[in-house]
Amino acid sequence: MNVNGKWYRAIWPNEHDPETVEIIDQRKLPHRFEIVGLTTAEKTIQAIRDMYVRGAPLIGATGAWGVYLAVVNMKDADNPLQYLKEECFKIGNARPTAVNLEWAVKAMETAILEKPNAEDWLKAAWFKAIEITEAEVENCRQIGLHGSPLIEEISKKKNGKTVNILTHCNAGWLACVDHGTATAPIYAAFDKGIDVHVWVDETRPLNQGSRLTAWELGQHGVPHTVITDNAGGHLMQHGKVDMVIVGTDRTTHTGDAANKVGTYLKALAAKDNNVPFYVALPSSTIDWELKDGVKDIPIENRDPDEVRKVWGLHDGHLVDVLVPPEDSPALNVAFDVTPARLVTGLITERGLCKASEDGVRSLFPDKMK
Amino acid sequence: MNVNGKWYRAIWPNEHDPETVEIIDQRKLPHRFEIVGLTTAEKTIQAIRDMYVRGAPLIGATGAWGVYLAVVNMKDADNPLQYLKEECFKIGNARPTAVNLEWAVKAMETAILEKPNAEDWLKAAWFKAIEITEAEVENCRQIGLHGSPLIEEISKKKNGKTVNILTHCNAGWLACVDHGTATAPIYAAFDKGIDVHVWVDETRPLNQGSRLTAWELGQHGVPHTVITDNAGGHLMQHGKVDMVIVGTDRTTHTGDAANKVGTYLKALAAKDNNVPFYVALPSSTIDWELKDGVKDIPIENRDPDEVRKVWGLHDGHLVDVLVPPEDSPALNVAFDVTPARLVTGLITERGLCKASEDGVRSLFPDKMK
Repeated sequence: MNVNGKWYRAIWPNEHDPETVEIIDQRKLPHRFEIVGLTTAEKTIQAIRDMYVRGAPLIGATGAWGVYLAVVNMKDADNPLQYLKEECFKIGNARPTAVNLEWAVKAMETAILEKPNAEDWLKAAWFKAIEITEAEVENCRQIGLHGSPLIEEISKKKNGKTVNILTHCNAGWLACVDHGTATAPIYAAFDKGIDVHVWVDETRPLNQGSRLTAWELGQHGVPHTVITDNAGGHLMQHGKVDMVIVGTDRTTHTGDAANKVGTYLKALAAKDNNVPFYVALPSSTIDWELKDGVKDIPIENRDPDEVRKVWGLHDGHLVDVLVPPEDSPALNVAFDVTPARLVTGLITERGLCKASEDGVRSLFPDKMK
Repeated sequence: MNVNGKWYRAIWPNEHDPETVEIIDQRKLPHRFEIVGLTTAEKTIQAIRDMYVRGAPLIGATGAWGVYLAVVNMKDADNPLQYLKEECFKIGNARPTAVNLEWAVKAMETAILEKPNAEDWLKAAWFKAIEITEAEVENCRQIGLHGSPLIEEISKKKNGKTVNILTHCNAGWLACVDHGTATAPIYAAFDKGIDVHVWVDETRPLNQGSRLTAWELGQHGVPHTVITDNAGGHLMQHGKVDMVIVGTDRTTHTGDAANKVGTYLKALAAKDNNVPFYVALPSSTIDWELKDGVKDIPIENRDPDEVRKVWGLHDGHLVDVLVPPEDSPALNVAFDVTPARLVTGLITERGLCKASEDGVRSLFPDKMK
């Protein structure tokens, strides 16, 4: 996607040095655009855990490249099989909520272990990482194709008047290698000339909405307005939101969607005001095991200082400010789960379906267990 | 209430100079504790508009003292009656959502104009401002007495285990001269020895929760944890919230409650998880005219930079940081309205009632129109 008119993805192998994988340090956006080269699995784990990269599909792709970098650095391992399994375990556990990470690491491990000879592993890892990355991009493109007609339909009903779409957190191309999940239908509709406007929830504590989604949309020229996470309910009560589209870090095959904390509150408000609420996701985000998302999806608690301190630009410098009293404790729950009953539909790479076991089965009979 | 062990109120006339009214500059809390002396109606309006003081009961009391200061400075007015009416109009319109301001200014004007001779106005204004202030304090104390049994009851049901109470924004003593509205039952229960813990919504954009409520509770020794506004739904889903108590800036006599934006989202989550949701208010906050709060209560839009910038402590200095891209616009809706159907009950100075016209009439037959 566009950054100052130049096309970028959120992760790519260095074109001159195939042993380095490049990412954008998303912690510094929108105020700094810095590219970081990853050369080891350890650095990749750090990049995932410390959120240089984030977003379920990108975490998955980064995990895949992490396994590739583990293989790159395997040379001195006494026991390659044990080394690979240990590295995969570490990478797969860098963050707990996104199911894509587990999935991608498992897919890498399986593809690598198809080669009995460890000398063939590097090539296998390279091609599988490329395949996973390209599949995420294609899935997002398909999500855009399947989701944009929903926006077009509202536009027609409103006689071409602006379609107001609310989104929470960043499920844009920065979260997904390219296109995005929640943003894919928006970009597709905008590129077709439909009049869209996006309400961007700032998304505390890390402000991925105001920092990343607003920046992405701005770079692409999509009209948008940053709002506090508190404001969406009021806007819905007053008819100022036509639809909600969010991404997800893990959605059960029964339709319960884990996403950035606060998503559940927007889903409740959408239901209360008859606003359609869609979750956009590639099937790599679907959990085929868990049935009860609210009860069973593991929810990450992160560093309380992410809540207590806010990071931004002051006088040309990137600094953080402490908001509450020095001695007030904080809790930093990173995700919540929106029960399927509040979700109007899922937008996937294979089309739309209901957020239910039957709905998911209708599109993915081959993947259902 | 306590500030470093010393007893304070949120507004008081200077004990040596009756022509100065003192307030705490709440914009600088919790990092600085600064007292500002108001000497004119104009400065009082500025203090209300720029939120040196905030919270419906305190805005009302400050408005009353503003009218008193207008009378203090009346000496040179050619036409005292016209001067008084103009000043009252300006003070009454300093902020639009809190009904207490209108109510207090009107009460001051009426009390003053009962004296036909303008020479008697100063004394009348002084005594009425004292009366309004003391009535707010007494109302809050009564709210504490009527509300704390609700907490005690939950404590008993839980066999003395911690009662977890969620609150949004600051409806503490800083918002109310003393005691607070939403916090009055909490302080009363805590002072009785009941084991309570408060989830403090940080309350974007101005963070009155993490800045003011956390500070107040900390100064009084009440256990509390700061959370993002996004987190409450998740906590309720997992049984970690026993009740919600919030304040209000204006509640219709039919039970619709305007409060800091985001309150509606918490009320929806409380309903969805069978968590009792109470609104604590003195009757000065009740609007006896409007029937449909969602449709008719005027909602203030404030400066978008309050959303774009966050203010806090960096390296010993108070600074603000810009979060979104420089060129991304923001909208700053300050309040929302929670419909009566989501409110378990109102806690008033005369006791508890249902959030309905019949409920309010049962306690305030004399005030109902």
